[in-house]
Amino acid sequence: MRIAIDAMGGDDAPKAMVLGAQQAVQTYSDLEIVLVGDEGKIRPHLTDSSRIKLIHTNEAISSEDSPVQAVRSKKRASMVLAAGEVKEERADACISAGNTGALVTAGLFIIGRMKGISRPGLAPTLPTTDGKGFLLIDVGANADAKAEHLYQYAVMGSIYVEKVRGIENPRVGLLNIGTEEGKGNRLSQDAFALLQDAPVNFIGNVESRGLMEGAADVVVCDGFSGNLVLKTMEGTALSLFSLIKKELTKTTIRKLAAAVLKPGLSGVKDTVDYSEYGGAALFGLSAPVVKAHGSSDERAIFNAIRQARDIVSRDVMPMIAETAKNQNGGI
Amino acid sequence: MRIAIDAMGGDDAPKAMVLGAQQAVQTYSDLEIVLVGDEGKIRPHLTDSSRIKLIHTNEAISSEDSPVQAVRSKKRASMVLAAGEVKEERADACISAGNTGALVTAGLFIIGRMKGISRPGLAPTLPTTDGKGFLLIDVGANADAKAEHLYQYAVMGSIYVEKVRGIENPRVGLLNIGTEEGKGNRLSQDAFALLQDAPVNFIGNVESRGLMEGAADVVVCDGFSGNLVLKTMEGTALSLFSLIKKELTKTTIRKLAAAVLKPGLSGVKDTVDYSEYGGAALFGLSAPVVKAHGSSDERAIFNAIRQARDIVSRDVMPMIAETAKNQNGGI
Repeated sequence: MRIAIDAMGGDDAPKAMVLGAQQAVQTYSDLEIVLVGDEGKIRPHLTDSSRIKLIHTNEAISSEDSPVQAVRSKKRASMVLAAGEVKEERADACISAGNTGALVTAGLFIIGRMKGISRPGLAPTLPTTDGKGFLLIDVGANADAKAEHLYQYAVMGSIYVEKVRGIENPRVGLLNIGTEEGKGNRLSQDAFALLQDAPVNFIGNVESRGLMEGAADVVVCDGFSGNLVLKTMEGTALSLFSLIKKELTKTTIRKLAAAVLKPGLSGVKDTVDYSEYGGAALFGLSAPVVKAHGSSDERAIFNAIRQARDIVSRDVMPMIAETAKNQNGGI
Repeated sequence: MRIAIDAMGGDDAPKAMVLGAQQAVQTYSDLEIVLVGDEGKIRPHLTDSSRIKLIHTNEAISSEDSPVQAVRSKKRASMVLAAGEVKEERADACISAGNTGALVTAGLFIIGRMKGISRPGLAPTLPTTDGKGFLLIDVGANADAKAEHLYQYAVMGSIYVEKVRGIENPRVGLLNIGTEEGKGNRLSQDAFALLQDAPVNFIGNVESRGLMEGAADVVVCDGFSGNLVLKTMEGTALSLFSLIKKELTKTTIRKLAAAVLKPGLSGVKDTVDYSEYGGAALFGLSAPVVKAHGSSDERAIFNAIRQARDIVSRDVMPMIAETAKNQNGGI
């Protein structure tokens, strides 16, 4: 199996990508990695290049670049070349920690959609208090979704969670602003009706209040809503931790007490740190694309590689394609 | 000034409403209150009935009732009668801690829309880390909003925040999934264009990640998105506090250290407790309606009364009506 990695995307590029790749090939003997990026910046970190190939390029897409324009004009950008490796079937999957919009665009334009799927969905696994996590699909690949897209997300998300995260018969919920049938906007009402006939374990509407308590294993929504929820969870957690830190360092006695509690509070931080669950997978393309968090370190990149490897080795894509085919040529 | 209160809505009804009302008339000498509900249940809590009038009814709307059906069929429900007091101009505003959907429906059907406003917006003030708070409008009065509704929310929210919360020239942001112009779904793109010409201090798009850090003083969005964000903030905060509590009570030494930090952690809880900011105001009706939180205690009801009184005494409604008129008969 071969995985292509955009070595130049993310805050800690290319170091995190190089070290994460080395750790991955050492762990998985069936794995080869192609690092795409600036050879002069990659080499200093590369201590062992067995089963790691380099493709050199000086060009890269930055986080400020306009996605569509960047993918079109920067033909030798590391992200574009990494996607090209997948398109040319020289790699089975690709990973980037760079510009999310550009990665979705590169996936669509270069790798292309899977037959029977209208829109790809970007799906991170987000934390729950029991440490199990839930898949939120879509968080922004498709801001104006239709009900049939949500149906497709439900099918793709359910297959992924069962095959890769090992959750049997995963509970699929529709993100909504009330739990009763008939609640929500037109999109959620239409999607509710469709989802009742989907080949998944549809449990109905779930509210955003219950997500961290594990209301469902897969939560489907339009990309606008999903992005709002994702960033509200992140922002609320960060703000609360910063408030707590301020309170806990106000006096010397508080600092002493806080030192005792540090492992406990770090444990809470780890529980809600979703980089532990790997990156966000982009489903609906003809090959797996994984978006690692922009602030990914070596460990997060390793997790994203493991995740991409699991998607490939556990036949998630063929299973989605098969389900799409069984639904009269398109789910 | 007279305020009508649905004494039978909310977890702690009618006790919280009676005690909150008593405290309010003692604080504000210009205030009269009409408590609508079951006299037999209200009387035991009412120790001083000066400037407090009772309207007796046995009927009430429960949180499980279907909003439209309940308001139509339960003609003598405490919430319906309280709204009727406003419609008949025997009260200047009304308050309920009951079924939110029913209150929006009662506001629309009984009190009616303000001229020039197409849709009411429900607007709570949510916490920021600096304790200042921000107004989120709408959180669910109107799940399928159009760009012109968001424009109206911006105008109404801005006037309220300036007049009642005392924030001069409040910064109005459009809730979006990116900060650059052109980001988001069709609704946010259309709303962005309209808001640039609104008679408010429009600062552009704001992301949900920055809300608790005070990204804007007024944040406008469709009711579906607003409700998701509100409940994600609530859910994330509750889940984090429960995780922290679990960690902090794991061992005896942690319990001892936690005791030292209790005031600090309570301070954080208070900072993010948005009941301190009063209830959610429903704007766009011909008179103010305030939705107090379902779990409101006496203090929260007092805050909601103070808020309704401020909206009336600081001429928020006439100012909104005037602005609506200046915009060619409708904003």
